Amino acid sequence: MAVQQACGIIAEYNPFHRGHAYQLQQARQKSGAACLIVAMSGNYVQRGEPAIIDKWQRARLALAHGADIVVELPFAVSCQPADRFATGALAILAALGCDTLAFGTETPTFDYQDFVQRVWPQSQQQRFAVDYTKTYATQWNELLQQEMGSMVAAPNQLLALSYAIANAQLAQPLTLLPLARVGVDHDQDSSGHDQHGQAFASASYLRRQLLQGQTAAISPFVPYGPQVLQGPFLAADQLWPWLHYRLTTTWPQALAPIYQMSEGLEYRFWEQNLQSQNWSDFLRRVKSKRYTYARLRRLALYTLLNVTAAEIQQALTQQPQLRLLGFTAAGQQYLHQQRSKIAAPLITRVTAAAGAPQGPLGLQIRVDRLYEQLTGREQNFKQQIIIKK
Amino acid sequence: MAVQQACGIIAEYNPFHRGHAYQLQQARQKSGAACLIVAMSGNYVQRGEPAIIDKWQRARLALAHGADIVVELPFAVSCQPADRFATGALAILAALGCDTLAFGTETPTFDYQDFVQRVWPQSQQQRFAVDYTKTYATQWNELLQQEMGSMVAAPNQLLALSYAIANAQLAQPLTLLPLARVGVDHDQDSSGHDQHGQAFASASYLRRQLLQGQTAAISPFVPYGPQVLQGPFLAADQLWPWLHYRLTTTWPQALAPIYQMSEGLEYRFWEQNLQSQNWSDFLRRVKSKRYTYARLRRLALYTLLNVTAAEIQQALTQQPQLRLLGFTAAGQQYLHQQRSKIAAPLITRVTAAAGAPQGPLGLQIRVDRLYEQLTGREQNFKQQIIIKK
Repeated sequence: MAVQQACGIIAEYNPFHRGHAYQLQQARQKSGAACLIVAMSGNYVQRGEPAIIDKWQRARLALAHGADIVVELPFAVSCQPADRFATGALAILAALGCDTLAFGTETPTFDYQDFVQRVWPQSQQQRFAVDYTKTYATQWNELLQQEMGSMVAAPNQLLALSYAIANAQLAQPLTLLPLARVGVDHDQDSSGHDQHGQAFASASYLRRQLLQGQTAAISPFVPYGPQVLQGPFLAADQLWPWLHYRLTTTWPQALAPIYQMSEGLEYRFWEQNLQSQNWSDFLRRVKSKRYTYARLRRLALYTLLNVTAAEIQQALTQQPQLRLLGFTAAGQQYLHQQRSKIAAPLITRVTAAAGAPQGPLGLQIRVDRLYEQLTGREQNFKQQIIIKK
Repeated sequence: MAVQQACGIIAEYNPFHRGHAYQLQQARQKSGAACLIVAMSGNYVQRGEPAIIDKWQRARLALAHGADIVVELPFAVSCQPADRFATGALAILAALGCDTLAFGTETPTFDYQDFVQRVWPQSQQQRFAVDYTKTYATQWNELLQQEMGSMVAAPNQLLALSYAIANAQLAQPLTLLPLARVGVDHDQDSSGHDQHGQAFASASYLRRQLLQGQTAAISPFVPYGPQVLQGPFLAADQLWPWLHYRLTTTWPQALAPIYQMSEGLEYRFWEQNLQSQNWSDFLRRVKSKRYTYARLRRLALYTLLNVTAAEIQQALTQQPQLRLLGFTAAGQQYLHQQRSKIAAPLITRVTAAAGAPQGPLGLQIRVDRLYEQLTGREQNFKQQIIIKK
């Protein structure tokens, strides 16, 4: 029997739209893989916010529109800066036996090989992170402009570089398959048409429509009837009363164990909370040149969810967590045939032991509980894996 | 100049009603004191719940209907079992120079002197608290029945005994002035008329009317127009989402430092929270023979407000906190004339230093912040002391 090939994709699908469906189609076509595996963020996304709809609804749509397997990126991976996000996601895809990584980029002709072998080591010598007068992205932009004549303006381009770096550090790196992005940039709040007249909209545009109750308005941009999306739709603003309560019922020094709460940020968080009116106002008040909004949003989320550095450390030193949210028949066949090659246990349901405080899924179950409280939708113990016929 | 006499009263006024006004009038008449000082619970009351309206509105009504001075019982005193509640409240009244303590009781002819000198020492030998098969109240009832032919069925009778005990332990005990209670028992949910046809209702009856939006229904039972009460009205049920969030975003062992979280209760709290639907349901689930509802309600409140044993310990070892909420001209005159006798600094406004995390009012300010969040009403820094002309 021929060895099946699997192509991995890292995604948030927040929410799933035509651009995502097109990317899955391109990945299948260009990789020639028998199986498309999506490593998808759980209920909290990289920018430090809750996903607008839960992981089950997003996984279901991905399976309906091209994915064969959806595996969850756990909180300790999904809600991280680009480099740790990429490292954690690549580890999961590699453990599942992927040989290719497909990813969207505005610059598909960029030479990732040259970047990883020549430019990346150089950036390491410069020790970017120490230069606090420039953001990480600015420093990357300058280096790439100088060395490769290319910019990394958009966050997803920075992610692509992070994937390349994380991949190069694997014992057996995957083949990188950059795919030209179509339509509009997913982090711009806009909609439009590509050169073939196909309607595309950014995820943030779609989120805004959903949050404003304009569910029908997303119709042209998604490959499904918008009525399949079951609210309530979540946004960071809805987390504000909880973060405010969390911060007012504690003292600054008790915040110090929170992941990434460094350099006295606990005092800044505690003080500014007292004056803040909402989530954005709070972020504006704690903002300084030293920290990006993304870093502060994630820190606010860690605080809200009471996630400590020790917990993240422990989660990251475990073997990759292969929590399957669903698969198609082809995905199931792949997992069956490759089972001897898969480098960690497959998790297809959450047992009481795994989800207990000290269990391997303990942190994941815990952070999902606020999501459950706010949406009224069970996220773990009573959920069954999605099997798409 | 003759030495002014001051009579103290310990109260919650949750909310203030005709029975309270009558008690103030009786206290003044029977004590002959020039000044009536009320030590009133702040925003959280003894049964482990938020007061239905804030301390400022309650203080204002007390001053309008007979009190000369209202001093706040801080959280570390107001939300405690009867013995600690009484000890803390007596310390405050003694520090303010009271020579008499007036209190309501169904059994005004009860011999408090005999009780304190003979029966109380006996109860101490029996070390009630160690016998977990009977509640504290049950053990008192049995002892009093046997020794004095009297019962302490109602919580306010248990409070009266606690006042007598706490008073006896003062360096200079106050004169006890038991006042016959009129109308209905304030902890029963009822309303009615006394033998003179005067309408009286329990505080819990009035709370229920207010919470159901039947503001006008309290008219016959209060000596003011009910429209002076400014909502929103708070009840324990409204605290449930916050307690649920607090418990789901932590692990059991992190709850151990909470005040009174002993004997593995942190595991019971954590586990039962996951299944609970609301505040009462939660309390029913954590209830066991070993703990009274009052104890568990207070423990739920300590958990909600993240109050640790160390914080309460520190608060209780400070000198009595004399936080004045308001006074009349007579009250002001008393404070002025007695200033050399008053045993601790008078607090008439909250300075930034006093209200800072390590300041003497730090804990008080902190617990009030949830009350502020839920009502939208500033409780400390921007509030000015009430001066009733």
